[in-house]
Amino acid sequence: MSLIILGSVAFDALETPFGKTDKIVGGAASYAAIAASYLYDHVKIISVVGEDFGQDNLEKFTSKHIDISGIQIKSGEKSFFWSGRYHNDMNTRDTLVTELNVLGDFDPIIPTSYQDAEYILLGNLSPQVQLNALERLTKRPKLVVMDTMNFWMNIALDDLKEVLKQVDVLTINDEEARQLSGQYSLVKAAAVILTMGPKYLIIKKGEHGALLFGENSIFVAPALPLAEVFDPTGAGDTFAGGFIGYLANKGVINFESMKAAVIYGSALASFCVEKFGTERIETLSALEIDQRIQTFSTLTSFVI
Amino acid sequence: MSLIILGSVAFDALETPFGKTDKIVGGAASYAAIAASYLYDHVKIISVVGEDFGQDNLEKFTSKHIDISGIQIKSGEKSFFWSGRYHNDMNTRDTLVTELNVLGDFDPIIPTSYQDAEYILLGNLSPQVQLNALERLTKRPKLVVMDTMNFWMNIALDDLKEVLKQVDVLTINDEEARQLSGQYSLVKAAAVILTMGPKYLIIKKGEHGALLFGENSIFVAPALPLAEVFDPTGAGDTFAGGFIGYLANKGVINFESMKAAVIYGSALASFCVEKFGTERIETLSALEIDQRIQTFSTLTSFVI
Repeated sequence: MSLIILGSVAFDALETPFGKTDKIVGGAASYAAIAASYLYDHVKIISVVGEDFGQDNLEKFTSKHIDISGIQIKSGEKSFFWSGRYHNDMNTRDTLVTELNVLGDFDPIIPTSYQDAEYILLGNLSPQVQLNALERLTKRPKLVVMDTMNFWMNIALDDLKEVLKQVDVLTINDEEARQLSGQYSLVKAAAVILTMGPKYLIIKKGEHGALLFGENSIFVAPALPLAEVFDPTGAGDTFAGGFIGYLANKGVINFESMKAAVIYGSALASFCVEKFGTERIETLSALEIDQRIQTFSTLTSFVI
Repeated sequence: MSLIILGSVAFDALETPFGKTDKIVGGAASYAAIAASYLYDHVKIISVVGEDFGQDNLEKFTSKHIDISGIQIKSGEKSFFWSGRYHNDMNTRDTLVTELNVLGDFDPIIPTSYQDAEYILLGNLSPQVQLNALERLTKRPKLVVMDTMNFWMNIALDDLKEVLKQVDVLTINDEEARQLSGQYSLVKAAAVILTMGPKYLIIKKGEHGALLFGENSIFVAPALPLAEVFDPTGAGDTFAGGFIGYLANKGVINFESMKAAVIYGSALASFCVEKFGTERIETLSALEIDQRIQTFSTLTSFVI
């Protein structure tokens, strides 16, 4: 039994109103795997990096007992690199540099030791790569979670719809839900998207929290009100990793367990934005996570 | 013991993507008083209308046992009239007509029978009128709730700050909180506003719910996810009326009771937007309200 995280492992260079970084470790799989590792013991990454990524960076994963035998290391090539600058509101950003490098022709390889996976997160990557990874598993995992973004809706919508047919849970943001469904109301958008394949849909609304739809029910999760968002990079990936990590640990898949999973994802994401990149989520303690979960509970509980 | 609602009683003409109305009853006090009347028996309006308002329209209040002896009826004059058109997203609107009429020189008169009021909602009106009404009470109510909007921040900020000093709870929306505080982060905005007088602050975020700040705590209330918002007019006033109506009924003023009050306000506002104007909130049953409160509870409850 294990949890596979498919996604990019990469370098980012970030600028926010609070400062800027040189190249630091980023990528959807990095955030998601680190987040999931706090909740589940058998996390395995499928990804690709260049020779430049370095052993010390890979130790960010192995030190958390994350299996990296599915990370291909391409000698003589460079890792995916993204550079962006956030605006003052932290909700919008400009991409300064995108160098696909090894990600340009990424062909996911599934180690034999991964074939027992019961959970898989198809992190934000081209839908074709997501589909390839899924099809190369000899046994369909009991839970397939997919994260994607508007970029793929713009350039690979048909492929994206193919993957969607095979997915149990889709996580996207509010604008992406509107784009994918053609509906402005998120309730109507969810109804449309739930006919496309997923049985559950999570709509991420950043500072406004998240909505979970499925089983003819809706759950509204708050975001933690924060005085400062230091760096929002990776919050969505951290959310997805926390979400599926909780479910893998729990072993129960229904609307009730997904509600708690959304809270865990939200709590881990609330740590992620406190520092640049993966810095904050690399150093969490179990106590900190428990306290943050308790904060989420207090935030929304009321007695009539 | 009673609850005073100060605010406009007026005519509105509305256009939404779902249709349009002729002149119908509107105004902050109309929405707030009707909402409060479901939760508390001694609701009293202070307002002014013209001769055109008509006895049949006043019966919308008296039929709900709302005391209208504080509504001045100006013979030969016309009621406040506002006409607006909502855009397709229902979040933005254009004002087509504003005729102040009797509201232009409104001087609030407090009937002697209102002087025992323990609760007052200073509904959205000029800060000077809000202050006049408050100063004409011989005994300060034990709870003063103020609603206002960006319009008054633009043209009467000093007056508004004077009223704020006398207020226990302020309700405004997110953009107004940013404008009033000069802070983008709502957590920082709340910290600034809570130094201006109010002990509690409610930030209304429309479809994203509401935040309650006070006693060094935060409460996050969801909005009911709706497939269609038919007409958002009056939702904020309905929220404020439900909020203070619940507290007047409960008789307890602290963070815990305010959390429940925010949920009642949100529930009543969720009915308001289902039809044009006050149409929906005029016909609520106690059972419908109870069921809606239960829905809010289900929306946010989770078990770890």
